[in-house]
Amino acid sequence: MIEELRQLCLRRAIFFPESEIYGGFAGFYNYGPIGLKIKENFIRAWRKVFVEPDNIYEVETSLIQPKKVFEASGHLESFSDPIVQCKKCHSIHRADHLIEETLHIHVEGKSLDELQDIIYNNNIKCPKCRGELGQVRHFNLMFQTYVGPEGKEEAYLRPETAQGIFVAFRRLVSSLNPKLPFGIAQIGRSFRNEISPRHFLVRLRQFTQLEIEYFVHPKRKKIPNFNKWKNQELRILTREAQLKNEDVIVIKAKDAVKEGLIPHQALAYFMAKEMWFYKKLGIPEEALRFRHMLPEETPHYSKGNFDLEIKFDFGWKEVVGNAYRASYDLEKHTKHSGVELFVEENGKKIIPHVIEPSFGVERSLYAVLLYALQDDGRGWKWLKLPGFLAPYQVAIFPLVKDRKQIQTAKKIEKKLKKFNISCYYEDRQSIGKRYAKADEIGVRYCITVDEQTLKDKTITVRDRDTKEQERIEISKLKSYLSKKLETI
Amino acid sequence: MIEELRQLCLRRAIFFPESEIYGGFAGFYNYGPIGLKIKENFIRAWRKVFVEPDNIYEVETSLIQPKKVFEASGHLESFSDPIVQCKKCHSIHRADHLIEETLHIHVEGKSLDELQDIIYNNNIKCPKCRGELGQVRHFNLMFQTYVGPEGKEEAYLRPETAQGIFVAFRRLVSSLNPKLPFGIAQIGRSFRNEISPRHFLVRLRQFTQLEIEYFVHPKRKKIPNFNKWKNQELRILTREAQLKNEDVIVIKAKDAVKEGLIPHQALAYFMAKEMWFYKKLGIPEEALRFRHMLPEETPHYSKGNFDLEIKFDFGWKEVVGNAYRASYDLEKHTKHSGVELFVEENGKKIIPHVIEPSFGVERSLYAVLLYALQDDGRGWKWLKLPGFLAPYQVAIFPLVKDRKQIQTAKKIEKKLKKFNISCYYEDRQSIGKRYAKADEIGVRYCITVDEQTLKDKTITVRDRDTKEQERIEISKLKSYLSKKLETI
Repeated sequence: MIEELRQLCLRRAIFFPESEIYGGFAGFYNYGPIGLKIKENFIRAWRKVFVEPDNIYEVETSLIQPKKVFEASGHLESFSDPIVQCKKCHSIHRADHLIEETLHIHVEGKSLDELQDIIYNNNIKCPKCRGELGQVRHFNLMFQTYVGPEGKEEAYLRPETAQGIFVAFRRLVSSLNPKLPFGIAQIGRSFRNEISPRHFLVRLRQFTQLEIEYFVHPKRKKIPNFNKWKNQELRILTREAQLKNEDVIVIKAKDAVKEGLIPHQALAYFMAKEMWFYKKLGIPEEALRFRHMLPEETPHYSKGNFDLEIKFDFGWKEVVGNAYRASYDLEKHTKHSGVELFVEENGKKIIPHVIEPSFGVERSLYAVLLYALQDDGRGWKWLKLPGFLAPYQVAIFPLVKDRKQIQTAKKIEKKLKKFNISCYYEDRQSIGKRYAKADEIGVRYCITVDEQTLKDKTITVRDRDTKEQERIEISKLKSYLSKKLETI
Repeated sequence: MIEELRQLCLRRAIFFPESEIYGGFAGFYNYGPIGLKIKENFIRAWRKVFVEPDNIYEVETSLIQPKKVFEASGHLESFSDPIVQCKKCHSIHRADHLIEETLHIHVEGKSLDELQDIIYNNNIKCPKCRGELGQVRHFNLMFQTYVGPEGKEEAYLRPETAQGIFVAFRRLVSSLNPKLPFGIAQIGRSFRNEISPRHFLVRLRQFTQLEIEYFVHPKRKKIPNFNKWKNQELRILTREAQLKNEDVIVIKAKDAVKEGLIPHQALAYFMAKEMWFYKKLGIPEEALRFRHMLPEETPHYSKGNFDLEIKFDFGWKEVVGNAYRASYDLEKHTKHSGVELFVEENGKKIIPHVIEPSFGVERSLYAVLLYALQDDGRGWKWLKLPGFLAPYQVAIFPLVKDRKQIQTAKKIEKKLKKFNISCYYEDRQSIGKRYAKADEIGVRYCITVDEQTLKDKTITVRDRDTKEQERIEISKLKSYLSKKLETI
């Protein structure tokens, strides 16, 4: 399946590798015009669900940040993967992945020495040349650069958008004067020098994040809009289930909080919305689960991490990270900068707790495309995207290249664009080919102008999913589409 | 003036420096919530004027690109500034700027040796410590990094979005099958390691570009939509005028093409739109000019470069670069990659020419804010932004914190949001303060709910620019605003 999806993405330039003509550039993908439209629709939907209903402000901070930021955040010291180099062929491998793939055991959280021992005791060799492996060591995943003509100012491409928010916290609070709870959101690129990029859009060296830092009073356990989502069912893979190899439990958001499984309403609130959101995007319920991260996978300061995982063709993989980070980040930056980071409430300084849902855009889109991919029974692949995600909601065709049909079709295109219905006009190739090419990229409806249109002002509307056509009066087209197009 | 604008931007977190709490990070700015809204409105307006009316596809390519790309493009060899270091205090300066500021002469296009001679012959010293200056040398402006665990794969942060388009040209053409002329546009961050960032948002090390590569048949001089813009007047500072220290000429786009002043319709087409666009943004006509770049400022392959310059508080500065780059980029990448880059037309391979308008977003926004900045006569600064750019078009206030007034105000907020009118609700502080704070960030109209509203369903609408208030029926509010709000 994945190869067919990759081919479709390349053929229609939805996504394609950077620098293909120079042999590629592993871990870096580009968005073509159709991919970009899907991405923008995804972001618009995300804002509608996760940003707009709450007291959440959106910012855009720098992609390069000075070394000091990552000294404070701890990234410089510990944002690394364990690697091991072959003494013979000099190829480099991720030590933990190599062990997991060879021995089928989990080694998350193990020290370098422990990993070294496992490799030695199990006589694990280089997977490329069977050569002997060297010392396991840390490899920092941040891309480094130098700023200024002296070349002395060390800086890093941000590995997450979040640090930009924490570093700007004081400025934002003093300017916005927000009341707790409130959030600061950011959409943008992040960069990680992954040892071995893989799985198409899943493990990239450059990716897009949607992050919210939601600040709450450290002692208050309730947030304003929880009631709207309290009955949403969550599929949670508990720590116990992971150890006993059991399946997910299904539990309402409110009960998960009540029973202490989820440590804060705000965490359950975002998780409830995520469950609903990804189902709306077309991911089946069974392919969604929240994995409660095990203690060894969780930083010491965390009060609870839940990854939203999706079942991909190659297995389960994190798509959204939900972390209750307490006051760790604000306190670290306060300590390192000497500038107190707090919120004032009735004259008292409060260091808020933060709950962070962090979405990976390319992973999400890959999952969406994977589950949208359909076969028409004759080998033709097409994308069953919900209307609000489709790169174009409508395509408009004249049946034949007749002057009057063309004119009418273009008039309809103009009219629909005015109503903010995304559409395109096409008159090249046969009508069958045009339908097929529209289906291929997930266009929701095809409208065809034919001879009859010129007589009675009706057009045919073809539904991508049923392939059925209905004849509609042009004057009723807008209300017809408004009713039919899936929204979020 | 600039200091007051900077203060306003900081106070309301429109723009603010990266890593302020760590003492700042020269050349890197962040967008706060209000700045981000203005930026997004600017980009939406730009797409409407420059992308949507033509056959232009938008893409999003990688921010990091491999070394090979910049070997081919020539950036690795020549994308540099001349610098000179003080032998005593070791500070580094731009040699050309130092000469220009000391001797008030232009040295654009001069070689390192020539600059060295000028410094020596005129006995120019270090501006910081009056020490002796060393050799003039090149400093490449690209940020370098390394990709992969071996640390051997040299890569660069892109200094412009354009190269991503040229490198993806083959993939895009084979997938889109576009007919000439067509364009490929890109919105995104670019990075330049400027020697001395300055002038607030004008010379940054990280900035946002809006670029269009518009591909035309090398032998055809006409483009489809030129007629719509042919009568737009352009203010051009000709090469002759620059040498003779004369003023701009005002000439219609069609005449500038006819007289050979502008070498292609497509170039004149974009310039005409730019003239119109920046006036719509609030820049006065007299503060806009196209400077025909002098031969020594123009690359050898260029068939003509015209910079749209705006008069800032510190002088004229480029905001849009318009370049007729011929087939230079496609040919260079063909040569270096071995992959032919062309468009097929009736079975023939055509290497198109490219015309490139390249917009600097932060510079544009700085210019817009500069000309929008007003004083209410009592020292209070406010922003006179056109309705389509304002961060919020409307603010909604209850006159006092009365339950019914609050309810009604929130209902109006909800209704306006449904109609895609951007707005916010506020009930803190006095009504006068709320008006002043709305004016400060350029909110176009303030709506106030008062006692009378509860009786007769009318509200007051206050115009930011005239400060006049009108009483309107709530039911007529939407059509009232639709009529009044400036659009593009």
